[in-house]
Amino acid sequence: MFLDRLNWRYATKKMDPSRPVPEEKIAQILEAIRMAPTSSGIQAFRVFLIRDPELRARLRPAAMDQPQVTECSHLLVFAAWDDFTEARIDDTVADIEAARGKSEGITLYYDRLKERLLSRDTEANFAHAANQAFIGLGFALAAAAELEVDSTPMGGFDAATVDEILGLRAQGLRSVVLLPLGTRDTEGDWLYPMAKVRKPMSEFVTEIG
Amino acid sequence: MFLDRLNWRYATKKMDPSRPVPEEKIAQILEAIRMAPTSSGIQAFRVFLIRDPELRARLRPAAMDQPQVTECSHLLVFAAWDDFTEARIDDTVADIEAARGKSEGITLYYDRLKERLLSRDTEANFAHAANQAFIGLGFALAAAAELEVDSTPMGGFDAATVDEILGLRAQGLRSVVLLPLGTRDTEGDWLYPMAKVRKPMSEFVTEIG
Repeated sequence: MFLDRLNWRYATKKMDPSRPVPEEKIAQILEAIRMAPTSSGIQAFRVFLIRDPELRARLRPAAMDQPQVTECSHLLVFAAWDDFTEARIDDTVADIEAARGKSEGITLYYDRLKERLLSRDTEANFAHAANQAFIGLGFALAAAAELEVDSTPMGGFDAATVDEILGLRAQGLRSVVLLPLGTRDTEGDWLYPMAKVRKPMSEFVTEIG
Repeated sequence: MFLDRLNWRYATKKMDPSRPVPEEKIAQILEAIRMAPTSSGIQAFRVFLIRDPELRARLRPAAMDQPQVTECSHLLVFAAWDDFTEARIDDTVADIEAARGKSEGITLYYDRLKERLLSRDTEANFAHAANQAFIGLGFALAAAAELEVDSTPMGGFDAATVDEILGLRAQGLRSVVLLPLGTRDTEGDWLYPMAKVRKPMSEFVTEIG
């Protein structure tokens, strides 16, 4: 159960490289991300899976030298579309038509969406795409917790450098968050014994009406 | 299991207002959102829970008149901080110190974070806060799926109007996504019988190294 693991999971600060995550669990986490819902069904992000220790060692300095980048067994890089284009939206429409057949409603819906998105500036569209990647991140974290896989979402990193090392810009993508997946080294992890800190429910949620 | 419900869940287009979601399930979904990890532990968003049918009826036109806004039993509004401020970051530091005691490392970490965030422009900080709200949305959707609660994430809505109706700007918040929670009306829902459309794994995930 994911809901029973909300307190089990934490942003693991030290991982044990000798205990890799089983491949079948990685496959389940990736499937959860792939199945995450996205705005208008447009999956405006992609995921890169990096096992290679040397490549992770090259990326680590760009992630504030955080050791989990090399101590994990699998590094996920979430990369959002740098913009929405007609071709990208048409690609989603083609997928929908292939799965469900043509429909006037779908054509009309995506024509209107194009009008709205293609006239907006690039940064607004990138921010919109990034939001979808963060839904995917949420699904990845929920799946990892359910499977008792440790994870450390990293938002504070040098995206330009990561993009360059992985060649993302040429694919119309920009990295938005990193997710090392591995196994906690509880003895070496300063955060492991610490109390979790969250706003109390009364402050976090407001009931209206 | 959340992972067994990836195909069960879908963006419900028609809900049955006579079948409200039990309150204990709503409480579990809210707890999942509250426990979602956020950047530097700063929960830069808040959640509004709206049961009142009249208030939901007022909000519905701002959400492209989508019927789930009134057919659901509980409407969640995710609202992100409009900016990061010194006081807001200090509030997180105070929470951490209250839970774990004072530490030089924490002081230094958040001082550096302030330098980085408080010199950035408002829109970049709002986008950063919104990303955290979308992790929370991911946790909400995962929790709802696990509990077999139907949900319809809505990103396409008139945020300025929702903000005004709910008085969010005065609280330093901007709405970023709506989430009606309710029960599917399978007979009236055009999307229910349709095939789910997702990119194949080979296209969605790229393995490097």
